[in-house]
Amino acid sequence: MSANGKPVIGFIGLGIMGKPMARNLMRAGYSLVVHNRSRGPVDELAKEGAKAGSSSKDVAQQSDVIITMLPDSPDVEAVVFDKDGVLEGFKPGATLIDMSTITPAMARRVAGAVRDKGGKALDAPVSGGEKGAIEATLSIMVGGPQDVFDAVLPILQALGKNIVLVGEGGAGQIAKAANQLVVGVTIEAVAEALALAEASGVDPAKVRAVLLGGFAQSKILDAHGQRMLDGNFVPGFKAKLHLKDMRIVAQTAKESGVDVPEGQVALDRFTKLVESGGGEKDHSALRTLLSPVSSRA
Amino acid sequence: MSANGKPVIGFIGLGIMGKPMARNLMRAGYSLVVHNRSRGPVDELAKEGAKAGSSSKDVAQQSDVIITMLPDSPDVEAVVFDKDGVLEGFKPGATLIDMSTITPAMARRVAGAVRDKGGKALDAPVSGGEKGAIEATLSIMVGGPQDVFDAVLPILQALGKNIVLVGEGGAGQIAKAANQLVVGVTIEAVAEALALAEASGVDPAKVRAVLLGGFAQSKILDAHGQRMLDGNFVPGFKAKLHLKDMRIVAQTAKESGVDVPEGQVALDRFTKLVESGGGEKDHSALRTLLSPVSSRA
Repeated sequence: MSANGKPVIGFIGLGIMGKPMARNLMRAGYSLVVHNRSRGPVDELAKEGAKAGSSSKDVAQQSDVIITMLPDSPDVEAVVFDKDGVLEGFKPGATLIDMSTITPAMARRVAGAVRDKGGKALDAPVSGGEKGAIEATLSIMVGGPQDVFDAVLPILQALGKNIVLVGEGGAGQIAKAANQLVVGVTIEAVAEALALAEASGVDPAKVRAVLLGGFAQSKILDAHGQRMLDGNFVPGFKAKLHLKDMRIVAQTAKESGVDVPEGQVALDRFTKLVESGGGEKDHSALRTLLSPVSSRA
Repeated sequence: MSANGKPVIGFIGLGIMGKPMARNLMRAGYSLVVHNRSRGPVDELAKEGAKAGSSSKDVAQQSDVIITMLPDSPDVEAVVFDKDGVLEGFKPGATLIDMSTITPAMARRVAGAVRDKGGKALDAPVSGGEKGAIEATLSIMVGGPQDVFDAVLPILQALGKNIVLVGEGGAGQIAKAANQLVVGVTIEAVAEALALAEASGVDPAKVRAVLLGGFAQSKILDAHGQRMLDGNFVPGFKAKLHLKDMRIVAQTAKESGVDVPEGQVALDRFTKLVESGGGEKDHSALRTLLSPVSSRA
């Protein structure tokens, strides 16, 4: 515990999402120990009052609650299980909240290892992007025990708005996979609809406008549809990360014995986009796979 | 013109959508001449003050503006071009507004034939379903000349809320095809996401709730997602009609040289649903093609 009676929070992974999330925790009065693969964001947050941890183990040794926010399953695996990793420094009774988007299987493996150390674990992936991270309006999908969720809820409330315990360990990642399936498929559907309009000589901006008033309405049609009209593919959320997420969807579907034919097409489209060099672009760049692309692009 | 100075409106096609639309026009003070293949709805509206037309030709002979609201392209073709059809009774200077969902090609053919008779034509398909028709909150996607649109806008405003002239003749049908593509694909995406959650042991109701707070939000996730949770597949909008619309999407995409891979999957799924006997169910019944289906169903 820190002097103000709040738990000390270790924060590992200070990328596009992690850095503003760590800032929101500091604003909410928490003492932070931070670590990141590259040194830049650590120094930046240290200037703002965070303590720099020398390793994931070092962060764990000093923290009551450890939050990880990393790109992919292998990153979480390394930070948790490797030499100088979280488990080596884990304090009995501490809680690990992994907010990365990883496979449900890896989430369950991490939670099991934490419990073996006498700790508690939640998987708590998010939706809402950089904007949601900065504005603390993330949706947070949580898997794990109710009492652990209740204990750290004030921490999650400093990061997001729509915070739901969806089930047991791994359930947060299942919900996130469902989320990414819907988002990825909807982006491709909007891209196809606008390309169809444009190729047929109809102004896609007018089509977007009229579709927003009916059953075709979605946040994707609104935000990503506008990006497509503007030809603005600065991320946002990178296509290569959505490809990673669609692979998690496909793997989870296979393990669960569920057909996801639209999800499979979205996986194919993101694969095509990344293989053609679009991996660093916003995921709305799926529109560029279809011709014609607006002359305003 | 009728005694109150408003144009006399002929209304052909008094189905689930057409009947409440005709009623809204009568409420707005228009004199109506109505016709329908089956006699029931004609008698019903005649009791409420409409005049019964004996044929499409008869309706056209008495009307300044003729509205058609029919299931499919062949129905519109028959009502317009056949013996005793609209064209035989068409008054020079009259306007035909076809609000059916048909192929853009048929819409252009109808408009051309009307112009040859010295008339004006708009294609004006709608989105919003029976509820939107009853409550006069339909989205209306219009194709045709600006001056014709302006002249009949008060009539359209008695039927809907989000009324957009999207382009030249046929453009309304292109926009509607784009709409049905997005709606059909999104329904399947939501079905896959909820099936994935359920098969993985996570409560799909909780997944729907948390997804509604993020980028996966859509009217489909909200309304059709709830239908899937309830196992309530009473239409609404029948799967067989959405199959018809997905065929229009595929045909329009082919003619325009645009790939619509997600649209193609949605076409396949609706085909499967209709072939397995689900054509009369609500289009959200795509969920039933995936197991497991909620035990609440």
